[in-house]
Amino acid sequence: MAYDNQNIFARILRGELPAIKVYEDDQVLAFMDIMPQADGHTLVIPKTAAVTLLDLPAENAAYTIQIVQKIARAMEKGLGVEGIVLMQLSGTAAGQTVPHVHFHLIPSSVHELGKHAIQMGDQEKIAALAEKIKAAL
Amino acid sequence: MAYDNQNIFARILRGELPAIKVYEDDQVLAFMDIMPQADGHTLVIPKTAAVTLLDLPAENAAYTIQIVQKIARAMEKGLGVEGIVLMQLSGTAAGQTVPHVHFHLIPSSVHELGKHAIQMGDQEKIAALAEKIKAAL
Repeated sequence: MAYDNQNIFARILRGELPAIKVYEDDQVLAFMDIMPQADGHTLVIPKTAAVTLLDLPAENAAYTIQIVQKIARAMEKGLGVEGIVLMQLSGTAAGQTVPHVHFHLIPSSVHELGKHAIQMGDQEKIAALAEKIKAAL
Repeated sequence: MAYDNQNIFARILRGELPAIKVYEDDQVLAFMDIMPQADGHTLVIPKTAAVTLLDLPAENAAYTIQIVQKIARAMEKGLGVEGIVLMQLSGTAAGQTVPHVHFHLIPSSVHELGKHAIQMGDQEKIAALAEKIKAAL
């Protein structure tokens, strides 16, 4: 699939849209999901223009998963969560909504995910959770 | 968490239990889930003794995700699927059942996953799907 430079994650990466960031380096950005499926729901994205995991160059995937691990450990430590669901959806048929490859880290159970409504979260609460994750990095 | 050498994936890795394999090298094994949440449900595991993604050494995570990509592409090509859900559960609280780190590749939508019963699949059908994935690798 052709990459759409106007997707919201591309715009966040360019600084055109705001995000509650927990980690950033030259290759990867981690930020809070503003419609969290559970408290602490964080997204990790490579800065590479790729729609799905299948499109992402291997070296970017290799680096990104290490940052996913780093963020997950900070979530465990900073938020005191016991279980984390890593989810990555490739393709609209899988439920992918933003066409820039992203990894979800959700402190929840796979059995609970479907029960969470998709709606805007409390942004102040999300920002406070982000501070806890950052402090544990 | 301490690693239990008797978990079923450790036993599969040692050849003590059977598995319908689609890919194997010195670091990673990919095989069919025998209780598939959708047709073609495949598991990718590092051979390293680690319970969760948080425990897995970074270099093993980096290598494993590249094999996850390889298998996902073969599933797309070999099975003709349009969407793939990558899921990895860290911790029993997240719904992890086998205490050896594993990545699920499920040709389905995240919105459909909860609708699939957890039950034994048709093993002949699963083996036929495995052949299609292997042929596309």
